[in-house]
Amino acid sequence: MANITALETHDIRFPTSRELDGSDAMNPDPDYSAAYVILRTDATGPDGEPLAGHGFVFTIGRGNEVCVAALRAHEHLVVGRNLDEVLGDLGGFARNLTGDSQLRWLGPEKGAIHMASAAIVNATFDLAATAAGKPLWRFLADLTPQQLVDLVDWRYLTDALTPDQALAMLTRNRAGRAERETLLLSRGYPAYTTTPGWLGYDDDKLVRLAEEAVAEGFTQIKLKVGGNLADDIRRMRLARAAVGPDIRIAVDANQRWDVGAAIDWMRELAPYDPYWIEEPTSPDDVLGHAAIRAGITPIKVATGEHVQNRILFKQFLQADAIDVLQLDACRVGGVTENIAILLLAAHFDIPVCPHAGGVGLCEVVQHLSMFDFLAVSATTADRVVEYVDHLHEHFAEPARIADGHYVAPTAPGFSARILPTTLAAYAYPDGAVWADRAEVFV
Amino acid sequence: MANITALETHDIRFPTSRELDGSDAMNPDPDYSAAYVILRTDATGPDGEPLAGHGFVFTIGRGNEVCVAALRAHEHLVVGRNLDEVLGDLGGFARNLTGDSQLRWLGPEKGAIHMASAAIVNATFDLAATAAGKPLWRFLADLTPQQLVDLVDWRYLTDALTPDQALAMLTRNRAGRAERETLLLSRGYPAYTTTPGWLGYDDDKLVRLAEEAVAEGFTQIKLKVGGNLADDIRRMRLARAAVGPDIRIAVDANQRWDVGAAIDWMRELAPYDPYWIEEPTSPDDVLGHAAIRAGITPIKVATGEHVQNRILFKQFLQADAIDVLQLDACRVGGVTENIAILLLAAHFDIPVCPHAGGVGLCEVVQHLSMFDFLAVSATTADRVVEYVDHLHEHFAEPARIADGHYVAPTAPGFSARILPTTLAAYAYPDGAVWADRAEVFV
Repeated sequence: MANITALETHDIRFPTSRELDGSDAMNPDPDYSAAYVILRTDATGPDGEPLAGHGFVFTIGRGNEVCVAALRAHEHLVVGRNLDEVLGDLGGFARNLTGDSQLRWLGPEKGAIHMASAAIVNATFDLAATAAGKPLWRFLADLTPQQLVDLVDWRYLTDALTPDQALAMLTRNRAGRAERETLLLSRGYPAYTTTPGWLGYDDDKLVRLAEEAVAEGFTQIKLKVGGNLADDIRRMRLARAAVGPDIRIAVDANQRWDVGAAIDWMRELAPYDPYWIEEPTSPDDVLGHAAIRAGITPIKVATGEHVQNRILFKQFLQADAIDVLQLDACRVGGVTENIAILLLAAHFDIPVCPHAGGVGLCEVVQHLSMFDFLAVSATTADRVVEYVDHLHEHFAEPARIADGHYVAPTAPGFSARILPTTLAAYAYPDGAVWADRAEVFV
Repeated sequence: MANITALETHDIRFPTSRELDGSDAMNPDPDYSAAYVILRTDATGPDGEPLAGHGFVFTIGRGNEVCVAALRAHEHLVVGRNLDEVLGDLGGFARNLTGDSQLRWLGPEKGAIHMASAAIVNATFDLAATAAGKPLWRFLADLTPQQLVDLVDWRYLTDALTPDQALAMLTRNRAGRAERETLLLSRGYPAYTTTPGWLGYDDDKLVRLAEEAVAEGFTQIKLKVGGNLADDIRRMRLARAAVGPDIRIAVDANQRWDVGAAIDWMRELAPYDPYWIEEPTSPDDVLGHAAIRAGITPIKVATGEHVQNRILFKQFLQADAIDVLQLDACRVGGVTENIAILLLAAHFDIPVCPHAGGVGLCEVVQHLSMFDFLAVSATTADRVVEYVDHLHEHFAEPARIADGHYVAPTAPGFSARILPTTLAAYAYPDGAVWADRAEVFV
């Protein structure tokens, strides 16, 4: 009778602020980081190795230790649990994490405590898919509609979508699944790239990287905006000239504006045909996004990477506040809550274009979109997963891009595993990378 | 040239779960706790003592250590700061805490990281009021309208309320201030009591405490509901019989229901004339509250103790989703963000009836309502501050109630100081109270 025997945590930080990769209007100097969790068991996996599950909270540096503390706060709900019971009721396991009557005071279901429960839920799904010998996207797509519905915490959702409605949709969309899987394995899942557009890059680098993106097969790129209007107009003009009229250029303000400022600023960029404006204002402001959307149509409004949970997403959909839903694999409560969000988006017929980048977000979120294509929305129309070519070398199963598409992973699990050498070298503050750095500055 | 010299933290927990005080439909066994912060300085206060500021995050047990870690994460923004600069721009100091580009990833402005910045902001106001030799309510009311406007972070608010509108309102409401202060000092500020209504109490205790509350001068009590409908109907009937028709009975579901269930349940309680339903559903669900309100009128809808920040409160007001706004002194970003929320509520003409209870929430939040009466809404009509008679003995300046009203504090500061003997005895896990308990169970 196998059990979860340990909840192991690591504070991992990459000194990305040295290079200005990842710089935008609100995040001038991020050090991409992971509050990393490994669930150890006394079971053996199909590969003969000790069975474990890996997950992480993504942060941008300071505060990563708070998320490590939040991971540790869940230990009493995880360690000692019987593995068959956990794997037999993954939805119940997840609800048990978010439902802890004392921990939920720190949320409920938002911020550091929710991101930590997400990492543990994701680690559990990594473990489950590994035990099943399947990549996560297929593990999920192979579940029955009823099993998928049972994974979701329906609390606070039933005014927008009921379990019965979700069950009917999932059952209906089983048609054509085999053809879609064939297409996924041959073509991959559409991606777009943010690599050209960081605010810290100069114009030459922006143009060069934009041209390279098109040459590599991407049909959408993204620029960061919101620092300075004249700069944004110039960068948008240069990018449009570089990629031509047929490539979509999304822009991303990283929450920089109030409602009125967002509308005014976007009207100035409109001549260069921006495809969507991402995070124009606070991710908490459903009604603000609805007002911005009404003010800048036909430019689309997108948000989601900082949207805290399914309850906010539900309202963004109910209020017709967004055209594009950008879920994040690691901010809401993990796979289970993201299934709820995929179901809501499909029900409201809004495309999901997930947030990625950072540390490992590309690796994990691709599974969710591929699952969505097979089982939930059953389409890739107007759907793209963000891609940033950064830090993939630290993962055992790095995300792979071919001709502007994510290549479907075939290795079992959730692609969440950071290499042991990286866990050692980038450990904060005592790993070689940080210890060396301290030395340099002494 | 005085500086802030240390950010000292304490993990303080009271074993309240032993008594079922504080039990409700979502919180069966809280251990009321404080992640407590003391800002030390090298200055001397008007009383000749070393000048310091005290603040805290309130939690209900597990996870308190996460908030301590979140407090510590702000150290680089606080320690070493020049005291004159901080006190000369308290709004800028607060914006600097919530604006840290790396820490805000854990929110932004929500959950553990925001509660920690709130505790530090509140400690800074405790320090400022102490240095000025005034209780906080008077310290704030003595600021000019422009100084008050400058305390607020206006980002994300201007579509609902502009600084100029706020300035005009504050200037207009200076009229009659002296008379209101006289009234406040003679009568106090209206309170209501939750003491009778915890779910863990039996019927006899409920009736006895309800009768005592009326005898003590309270004109409103509150019952916890949402566990079991038949129980709620019986308890509501008993309470109504005990207090008569003229005492307001609020009920509180602590987020128990979905939208449809909230409407159905409240229609069953309607014959006993509940005054408001508090937290009928998720505190994140603005549109859900609006739907519930439309479904149960004329019963009022209240929420706020778990509402994360000014941006959510703005939307609750914009969407006509609540009749009563229940701010909490320690969940949103402290005094500065609560001033924004008081301004929004006054602008939308919605009464503020703050959440209190727990550890120290009564002590601190009374100051905000008294300030509101003097300077912002300029009225106490339909306004009451929650009171729970619990744990006050641990504070240097405990909240005092007379004839159903909070007595205006006169000691300088924010009434946030926990006694040193309590800090020692209730320290978790090594204080005498917890060490003894561990022994008992070994």
